[in-house]
Amino acid sequence: MAENSTGRQAGEKAISSAVIKRLPRYYRYLGDLLKNNVVRISSKQLSQRMNVTASQIRQDLNNFGGFGQQGYGYNVEHLYNEMGKILGLDKTNNIIILGAGNLGQALANNQDFDSNGFHIIGLFDVNPKLIGMTVKGVEVYDIDILEDFVKEHDVAIAALTLPKSKAPKVAEQLVSLGVKALWNFAPVDFDFPEDVLVENVHLSESIMTLSYRIHSQNE
Amino acid sequence: MAENSTGRQAGEKAISSAVIKRLPRYYRYLGDLLKNNVVRISSKQLSQRMNVTASQIRQDLNNFGGFGQQGYGYNVEHLYNEMGKILGLDKTNNIIILGAGNLGQALANNQDFDSNGFHIIGLFDVNPKLIGMTVKGVEVYDIDILEDFVKEHDVAIAALTLPKSKAPKVAEQLVSLGVKALWNFAPVDFDFPEDVLVENVHLSESIMTLSYRIHSQNE
Repeated sequence: MAENSTGRQAGEKAISSAVIKRLPRYYRYLGDLLKNNVVRISSKQLSQRMNVTASQIRQDLNNFGGFGQQGYGYNVEHLYNEMGKILGLDKTNNIIILGAGNLGQALANNQDFDSNGFHIIGLFDVNPKLIGMTVKGVEVYDIDILEDFVKEHDVAIAALTLPKSKAPKVAEQLVSLGVKALWNFAPVDFDFPEDVLVENVHLSESIMTLSYRIHSQNE
Repeated sequence: MAENSTGRQAGEKAISSAVIKRLPRYYRYLGDLLKNNVVRISSKQLSQRMNVTASQIRQDLNNFGGFGQQGYGYNVEHLYNEMGKILGLDKTNNIIILGAGNLGQALANNQDFDSNGFHIIGLFDVNPKLIGMTVKGVEVYDIDILEDFVKEHDVAIAALTLPKSKAPKVAEQLVSLGVKALWNFAPVDFDFPEDVLVENVHLSESIMTLSYRIHSQNE
């Protein structure tokens, strides 16, 4: 499945998807440390804050060259900036959002996006009540103009907040137009070639996991 | 961390969190098969649809007793119902949503919830413009009445769609009032005792993972 692949070319060192999923959390903690004017931190101190082992932190960061110095630890600002580069946050990622309902609007309003290079350039919907309105200054377009829009803009990521019945067809259209990364909130799995990256956020499945844990505890 | 624990008592068979995270996906596929009037399915056929190995399916389901019959495969309706019970979906989980902005409203509008025993009983906000409105028939209350509300209702899950600055304090209040499961959308980690279950949905981290994969591919 696309989400279990790192997307790296053969011959490059493959980073496991478990490591990749931990990177943004390192970045968040480093950002918090930086805001609190912490200049340097040992892997032990960082591990206590993050509730992971110091050895895991060192192993994870060693995938990218290490960054730590024996006896000094990590320079917070340097590591934060390097992690940002590894995550591609030093580049601009143009995003379109398919579906301008509550969830689409919530994504468009996400405060963390702008500061991390995620730039929302359009929302799309079929609902005439939504078309023409703006969310945080970004217009909601008629989904009928999607093809022209994608051809005219450099779209890095398409977020799909569409119903299950509509998402697969729109996803296929986007991929056929050359969009290479889908951030999918619809409760459906896509089956695209490996060069199409898919990150699923399946909210119903997330809450079912919680329900399982509640009820397995009570039995 | 709470999210790596199954929450089971010592002595019970521990189910790994990786298995638990896969259960809702089985449930979704079985529900789709049921809708398409499929009566039975082999683990091989199911594995092809789900893009996992048949052996993983058998191993995962064996954690709960198996359900398959040699030479027959799985009875779809039976397995669907059993999976629902395992996930606690045959019980009613009352949910409150903290934060009635776009994301809170999106969760309240989720179509999958009602049919799976998730029953939203209230939204809470500080914004006078939102207080008093209803979302899908559910009222938005002033967060000032949260304590009384939680004491008077059986709240299984609290969804937190609050800003990072406000989420920890409200989470602590909820836990002190006896709420045992938090579905957390704020970009912050909580540090509660093990009997408090936390399921995090960190949207910024999810899109950063996608950004990593886009840019590591291009290098």
